[in-house]
Order: sequence, then C-alpha cells, then structure tokens
Amino acid sequence: MDKKEKVVLLISCPDRKGIIAKVANFIYSHGGNIEHSDEHTDFETNTFFMRIVWSLHRFKIKPQQIPHKFAPLAKEFSLKWRLHFFPSRPQVAIFVSRQLHCLYDLLLRYEEGQFHCNISLVISNHKDAEKIVKSFGIKFFYFPLGKRNVQDVEKEELALLEEHNIEIVVLARYMRILSSNFIKHFPQRIINIHHSFLPAFAGARPYRQAYLRGVKLIGATSHYVTTEVDSGPIIEQDTVRVSHRDSLADFVRKGKDLEKIVLSRALLWHLERKILVYRNKTVIFD
Amino acid sequence: MDKKEKVVLLISCPDRKGIIAKVANFIYSHGGNIEHSDEHTDFETNTFFMRIVWSLHRFKIKPQQIPHKFAPLAKEFSLKWRLHFFPSRPQVAIFVSRQLHCLYDLLLRYEEGQFHCNISLVISNHKDAEKIVKSFGIKFFYFPLGKRNVQDVEKEELALLEEHNIEIVVLARYMRILSSNFIKHFPQRIINIHHSFLPAFAGARPYRQAYLRGVKLIGATSHYVTTEVDSGPIIEQDTVRVSHRDSLADFVRKGKDLEKIVLSRALLWHLERKILVYRNKTVIFD
Amino acid sequence: MDKKEKVVLLISCPDRKGIIAKVANFIYSHGGNIEHSDEHTDFETNTFFMRIVWSLHRFKIKPQQIPHKFAPLAKEFSLKWRLHFFPSRPQVAIFVSRQLHCLYDLLLRYEEGQFHCNISLVISNHKDAEKIVKSFGIKFFYFPLGKRNVQDVEKEELALLEEHNIEIVVLARYMRILSSNFIKHFPQRIINIHHSFLPAFAGARPYRQAYLRGVKLIGATSHYVTTEVDSGPIIEQDTVRVSHRDSLADFVRKGKDLEKIVLSRALLWHLERKILVYRNKTVIFD
Amino acid sequence: MDKKEKVVLLISCPDRKGIIAKVANFIYSHGGNIEHSDEHTDFETNTFFMRIVWSLHRFKIKPQQIPHKFAPLAKEFSLKWRLHFFPSRPQVAIFVSRQLHCLYDLLLRYEEGQFHCNISLVISNHKDAEKIVKSFGIKFFYFPLGKRNVQDVEKEELALLEEHNIEIVVLARYMRILSSNFIKHFPQRIINIHHSFLPAFAGARPYRQAYLRGVKLIGATSHYVTTEVDSGPIIEQDTVRVSHRDSLADFVRKGKDLEKIVLSRALLWHLERKILVYRNKTVIFD
Repeated sequence: MDKKEKVVLLISCPDRKGIIAKVANFIYSHGGNIEHSDEHTDFETNTFFMRIVWSLHRFKIKPQQIPHKFAPLAKEFSLKWRLHFFPSRPQVAIFVSRQLHCLYDLLLRYEEGQFHCNISLVISNHKDAEKIVKSFGIKFFYFPLGKRNVQDVEKEELALLEEHNIEIVVLARYMRILSSNFIKHFPQRIINIHHSFLPAFAGARPYRQAYLRGVKLIGATSHYVTTEVDSGPIIEQDTVRVSHRDSLADFVRKGKDLEKIVLSRALLWHLERKILVYRNKTVIFD
Repeated sequence: MDKKEKVVLLISCPDRKGIIAKVANFIYSHGGNIEHSDEHTDFETNTFFMRIVWSLHRFKIKPQQIPHKFAPLAKEFSLKWRLHFFPSRPQVAIFVSRQLHCLYDLLLRYEEGQFHCNISLVISNHKDAEKIVKSFGIKFFYFPLGKRNVQDVEKEELALLEEHNIEIVVLARYMRILSSNFIKHFPQRIINIHHSFLPAFAGARPYRQAYLRGVKLIGATSHYVTTEVDSGPIIEQDTVRVSHRDSLADFVRKGKDLEKIVLSRALLWHLERKILVYRNKTVIFD
Repeated sequence: MDKKEKVVLLISCPDRKGIIAKVANFIYSHGGNIEHSDEHTDFETNTFFMRIVWSLHRFKIKPQQIPHKFAPLAKEFSLKWRLHFFPSRPQVAIFVSRQLHCLYDLLLRYEEGQFHCNISLVISNHKDAEKIVKSFGIKFFYFPLGKRNVQDVEKEELALLEEHNIEIVVLARYMRILSSNFIKHFPQRIINIHHSFLPAFAGARPYRQAYLRGVKLIGATSHYVTTEVDSGPIIEQDTVRVSHRDSLADFVRKGKDLEKIVLSRALLWHLERKILVYRNKTVIFD
Repeated sequence: MDKKEKVVLLISCPDRKGIIAKVANFIYSHGGNIEHSDEHTDFETNTFFMRIVWSLHRFKIKPQQIPHKFAPLAKEFSLKWRLHFFPSRPQVAIFVSRQLHCLYDLLLRYEEGQFHCNISLVISNHKDAEKIVKSFGIKFFYFPLGKRNVQDVEKEELALLEEHNIEIVVLARYMRILSSNFIKHFPQRIINIHHSFLPAFAGARPYRQAYLRGVKLIGATSHYVTTEVDSGPIIEQDTVRVSHRDSLADFVRKGKDLEKIVLSRALLWHLERKILVYRNKTVIFD
C-alpha cells in the first residue's frame, strides 16, 4: 500500500460500552495507525457517532477485504457504517442556471486543488455557463426547459449522470425544482445552496423576502436536497450584516459572497467524508 | 442654555429638492451648530429620512418655541417630524418573567451609565426578580396571572405606567403576550427581545425549534411590538455559531449572550433617538 | 446633462457653524438634487467631514465650471475638497505575484459589473497570471526581478502606468515592496491586501506567524500603501475563526476567502469615492 | 459510585500506533463507559493529544486507585497525563481593579450555575468591588498598593490563596502586573482577559492604541498568564466591528461585551478540563 492511502470509517449506532475500544482494537490489532478520530453522542436519543481515519500503510487487511472482516463487529454493535478510501476522486456534476458566481467559485477552488473530486460535467437549463465551463476543460450539457416534459428531461439527465458515474450533484444556484424521482437517485448526495438563512425565507426570491421584512443580517444555507423543498438537513450556514442603506441589489451582492463560501464548505466536508445525517440534521466531524 | 443641551430632529417625507438646504438653513440662520446629521433616501418609494442634531447653545429660538417656528417649513415639505431634547431621561419600565439575564444586563448597563433614561419600575408575573430589582433601588410590581382576567391585570398595569409617566416599555424576556389594547398605548415604544433570528422560529420555544431543525447558527432579534406577535419592525439582530455538539442547554447558554447584547443595543439606539420606523422596517441612523 | 450624471463632493475642514447649510444651499440654489449626504465630525480634533452626492440633471452649473463656482465657499470655510463625476471609469492596474486568488476574484467581480472602472492592465513579476489575465481581454506585463536593478524596473512600470493613464493601483498579493519613489506617484491610490489582522503580524509570512502564536481568529486587512510597510491607513478588515485543528494550510485556505472579500470591498469603496484619509485613518462614508 | 461521577483524562504524548486502542481498552476492560472522547494530532511535531471522559458508575477501579492502575500504560507510551474527577468544585479567586463589568458578568454566570467551581474570594487593589462581591456572599480582600512593597503584598495574597486552597486565579481586568514568583505558583492556572486582539495592542491602553491605529475591528483575548506580559497561550479571542463613527468611549463600550464573553468562555473551558497547553498554544477540546 502507498504510504498515503487511508480509509475513513463512519459509524452510527445505539450507544453502548466498548464501541470505541472494539473499533480501535480492530484497527490496531491489524497494524493500522489511527490518524484521526472523532466521536459524538446524542444523549437525547442515546445514539453514538464516530468518524475514524487510519492509514493503510502496513495495515494487514486488504482494502477490499475490510468490509468482510469488519462485519462481525458491526453486527455485534448494530452499527450503521460506511467506508471510504482516500485518496479518491468521486465524480461530481454541477447544475447551474443563470447566476454563475457559485459555479465560478467552485471551478476556481477546484483548479486550486481544494476539492478532491472530478468535476465531470455541468448541466444547465441556460447557455450562459457554457463558455466558462468549457474553458476549464469540463463538459457542458444544455437542457432547455422549453415545452419539454420535465420527466423526459430528467430521464436524460439521469442517464447522463449514470453514464459518467456521478456520485455527487451540486446545485450551484440551480433554479429548477428536481422531482422526487430524481432526488431518490441521490440520497444525501445532492448539495444545494439556498440564498437565505433557512428556515427563514424558504422558496422563491429570498433576498426580496428578506429585504421586505427588514432583517439586519442576511444568510445563506447549504443543505442536502430532500423531496421537501428547502427542508433537507442543513450542512452549513453563515450570515452577514445589512442595514437600511442596503438596497436589494446590495443584499444580492453581499449574499453572493456568503453563498460561495457556504456552498464550498459543504462540498469540501462532503468530499472529506465528514458528514453524517441523522434525524434531518447533520453531524459535521472535525 | 446649557452648553450641552441639544435637540434631535427626526424627519421623513417624500423626497424633494431642497430639503437638506432648507432644514440646515433653518438651524444655521437661528444660530444653531449642527453636531450630527444623517440622511437616507429609499429610492423604491422616493422617501427621504433625516436625523439632525444641533446644539441649543446660542440657538436663538427657545426650545418650547421650536415646533411653532419649524411648522411652516414642515408643512411646505409635508414632513413627518419629531423633536427630542437632550439631555433628558425618559421613564422606562421593564417587564420580565423568570429568565433574568436580560434584566440583570440592562440594570448593570444602566448603573454604568450607558442608558440615558430612568428605569422607574419593573413589572413581573413572577417574584423571581424582586430581590435584585429592589437592590438597585427600583420599584418592583408583581402581577400574578393566576385566575385573574388578563384585561383586569393589564388595566392595572396601564394605570401604573401612566402614573409613572412611562414612555418606553422593555420586554426583557417577558413570556406573556400583551393585548392589542395594551400595545396601542405604546406605539413603537415597546421593545421586545425574541430569542431567535426572526422570522425563523417565531412563537414559543425558539431554541427548541432551532435545535430540532439542526441550524448551524442561532440568533436573537429585538423589535418593536405590534399586534401581530413577533412580526414588528426589527431593530437589531445577531447570530452565533452552534454545532451538533451543542445540546439544547448550550443553545440556551450561547443565546443568552446574544439576547443581552441585541436588546441593549435596541434600547440604546431608541434612547438616542436614532430609530425611524417605516413600512414595518427600521432606519437606524448612525 | 444625462439623467444619471452625478457629482460627488468630498470635504474635510475645521468644524464651524453653517457648513452643511452653505454647501446644501450651493447645490440647491443652482438646481441640484442631493441624492446622498453623509457627515462626520471628529470631536477630538474638531474636524468636519462630508460626502455629498447630487444629480447633474438640471443642475445649472456645467461640470467643468463647478470648481470655479465652488471656490469662494471652499475658501471661506478652509475646505479641503475633491470632486468626482459619475459615471466614470478610472483606469486601474493590478499588481500580482504567484498567488492568484485575489486577482481571479477581482476579475470576476469586474466582469459581473461590481466595479465601475477599467482594469487596463496587470503587472507581475511572474508569468503565472498571464493566461487568465489575457482570457479576460486585459493586457499583461511581465517584469521579472532577476538581476535587474529595482529602480530600473519601477521606472519602466511607472512609464507604463502613465502611458495607460492609471489612477489606481491594486496590489492583489504582490510580494515585492514598492520603493518610496513609486509610492509617491500614487498617494492614497495604491490599495494593498495584507493577509493578517494588522497591526498584528505585519511583514513576511503572516499566516505562519499567526499559526505559531496560536491565535483563535485570523484576519485580513486592506490599506492604502505608504512608505512605511504595512502601516498605511486601514480601509477594511475582517476575521474568521480557526482552531488547533487547523493546519497552516487551513489557515491559508480560510484566509484566502477573507483576503478576496476584504480587498474587493476596499476597491469598491474607493471607486465609489467613499473614503477620506485623515491622520493615517480612514473615514468610510456610507 | 454515584451515577453522575465521571473522570476526565487528558493526555499528550509522541504519536504512536495503538494509543487510542490501549486507553479505550483500559477503560472498557474495567467496566467504564466512555461518554466523550476527542483526539488531536499535531503532524508537525508528531504529537498526540486526547481528552477522554468516562463514567465511574460500575467502573471497577476506585477513583483513588486509577492513577496507580493507569501508570504502566502511561509509561509504555510516555504519556503526560492528568486526571480530573467530576463533579467537583475547584476553588477560584478573582482579581479585579476598578473596571467591574467582567467581575459582575462572572458572578452572574456563577449564580446561574454556568461554572462548576467555588468562587471563594475576590482580591482587589481598590474598594470599588467590595459591595457587590459581598452581596453575592463572597469574601472580599482589599490590598491597596500605596507605598507598600509589591513583594510583601503578593506574599500576603499568596498566603490567602493557599489558605483558601485556591486552584484557579482569574484576572478580571486586574490592572497590576503579577511578579514571576507569583505566576510560578499557578502555572497555567491564571486566566487573564486582555482587551485587544493579541498580539496586536499588547500592553497598556489597548483601546486607545486601536483607536489611534484606525482599525476596523476590535478584539479581546483570554490567555494563561506567563512571565512574559500578554504573551501566554491564547485560550479564546473574538472581535467586533467598529467604524470611524465610534469614539474611544464607543470602543470601550463595545469591547466590554467582548471581554465578558471571551473571559467567561475561557473559564468555562478550563473548568470543564477542555484545555491542553502545548508550545505556548492551546488545544481546546470539544
């Protein structure tokens, strides 16, 4: 094994004595060196969460054998668990409409090497993003809504995503609502940015809503997409101050900076496999 | 006139050429020295707002004559306007229930000299605050709800406020809803602190709501009380970061610090006559 | 005059009765409509500051005549003053080295229309930025340091800036120190971004310094460049939270987002003529 | 053992395979239930840090025997380690001068039950705090500087602290510098609040320094006191926005709110045994 190969194990289960000891022993007894470990217990529901990272260097179990070897322990403690191997580059698709600031921001961070993934393609219902996407050497697909049936369009999009082996979909200010059918193909794998501090100002034109309400801070929220609009598990939020002097255009300008930062954090954490979803909330491991 | 006596003039009107010049001339031509001036124009509705402060030292019009002398100009420009004289100490009443952190905070800031007012009395539906209020030399009135008719209780409270010439009512975590009748006695003169980032989590138990929704920031909002609960003009808001590690008790602890700061800013600005209400929003002058 | 043409007047002077009235009258009596006005008085030094914006639509003095007509009033009150006409597009040059995130950010905001200026050229001591600059249709000039005399290089750069009529120089992570001679050509017209919360961590490798000191927040500062390194008037600052978990690389990643926002705000405010420098500090008008 | 009795183990050591497994096993094999565990590795120096909390309910080793039983493991891994038992109420002394806002804030939080400690006494070089301290039923000791020798005063203070079995000293805006001798009695057990964003504006009158420098944010820093003034390990920092409109008095007013919050967080984390000091930096466990 390459010295830099690692595995991330994410666990949730009913809290019980001995979990940490048993898991840590499993890794240690097979020669693994734990590089990072983080635990959380929800005392309301007595649920235990863990993210543990160890080096595969000199680990005596081959990667493909780990699930098999780990299964008995997982069964003993009724674990829900997932394994991710690093380094890896999951395939990512970005959906965008006409507002391109989040797309640009993601592409620049991608080029800087912040995201360990492959941005394979960008899908849009408009052509505005085409030039810039292609200048980054990324495929661009145009799906105009026009008079076409939404189901048909989504069917083609899903085929495209499957063909490219897409694991994660990022909605970078994508202004169409995805169907339940589409969403079910990517459970906890569609990340949206909503330009308000949810649950305030869900739905359309949140900056306008915020402006009319006279709030003193505006926000942005990244969340996993579920079938209920703007109601999925929140990954990250941030706010910035506004005043009566700020016009609606100022709200939009200030908000864009938030949107970019909040969405990029969400994707970063997702790719680092730091997020567990639980009761429509997220545990974000350090 | 004492060198430190000043007057604050607050104006709103349809925007028109010449307002600033005419108002500034009115002051200058009578020997006033403008110490502070702040303007704002809402271009959506073409409305002009102004707060202007000048020294009464060597001002040739006596304070009580100013309204009369200013009236023609006000009429010419269809001004809505208010005058406030400084220094002055408006009478303030605080309403509180069992959570005392905001009350304590207000009393300490008051003792430090932050607030130019007289905190004349504290009203509560519980006895918890009595000792601390009296230790500051302030009157305490206990109005248990019990089996009494709310209208009767409010009638007595209103009589008490009138008797003490109360101008401003601060709801420092007062957990009862005031009637429309009560509120109409104090238009834009009742300041509430709500322990959420409004309009998110209006109503009861906002920290619990925020905890269940899994937000990543919690907030506090001070606003003027109107007859629609938690919907009045927002004066100030702030937020603080929370994570999955924070229990509901942590939300409450962190939120208390916000509540204290946000409420104290609102009262400070109100007393400095920096707030104009307009279309259920506030203009907060510098 | 075009309906959208405006003039911005920036004033500083010893505080005296009548300034606002006289200036507002000057504008009103010649038919100008004041669109925005903001004042500030520094009571420590008794200095008055003002920024006033009025429409040239129906203003009876021609733009080029305004200085002449305003001169007597300016003399009477010993005003320091500047006039700027809008819309206008001052020529801007960006200097950059190998870190390109601020450059990219400026170019994207520029393309979005946030900055009312012309970014005429980019100068760098490295070639890294060349491709991206040219893709935005902007000229790129490469000035390697190599064995060349700094004075000679700067002489050529100054000639280039003069030739392109450059008014404002933005140092977007430019890692070379400009000579006093260079700086004197652009008084209060060179904007730098320093990647720390100045005055903490001035000089080289501020993230490294911050990391070693174990701070819990990192910052970024935009300021006007003066002959004393990292000591010019601060225009804007912001901070973001870090923890023991953040490596030096994390400091850099988080800091980049700050740098972009802080530098872009500084340029925006400069272009909107909202900044007055006074005693090595800035007044930032609303 | 009472169901609520717990032990906190804090560890630092050179990073090596098996530490987590061995420590977790030690606890598990003796019947302990781990309630919380947090690890950190400093990859620059290859140092491992851990904080692990387990319940003593049904733990088979008696508290006073734990150190003895744990010693072999600690030796094997060259651990630096500390044990703390909960619930416990370490004795705390507060030092204060004339600025009382932090003192008041600590006392109120103490009364609310935020701090698991005993505030045994308050020491001051002024009498201002006497009344309020006594009203909380806490002893007050007055040590005027006058013409007395500092060494003599500190000797008496140290005797008093020893007599009251004081473990932690909080400097709540204490304006005298403690001698090296004094500090050595309380290594990493004296918590100071400095009213600036350190390392900016160390030393005297930080708000004045910040005001003169024209910063756009002010800060507060809590840190452990070391023999070098304002240079000890930083525990917590925060900042708040200021503008040219803020007078020095406004800086002070805004800063006070920061100081209170930042100092209270530091004491809270110290009492929860969440802080490890390492290379003049702090690891703050979750």
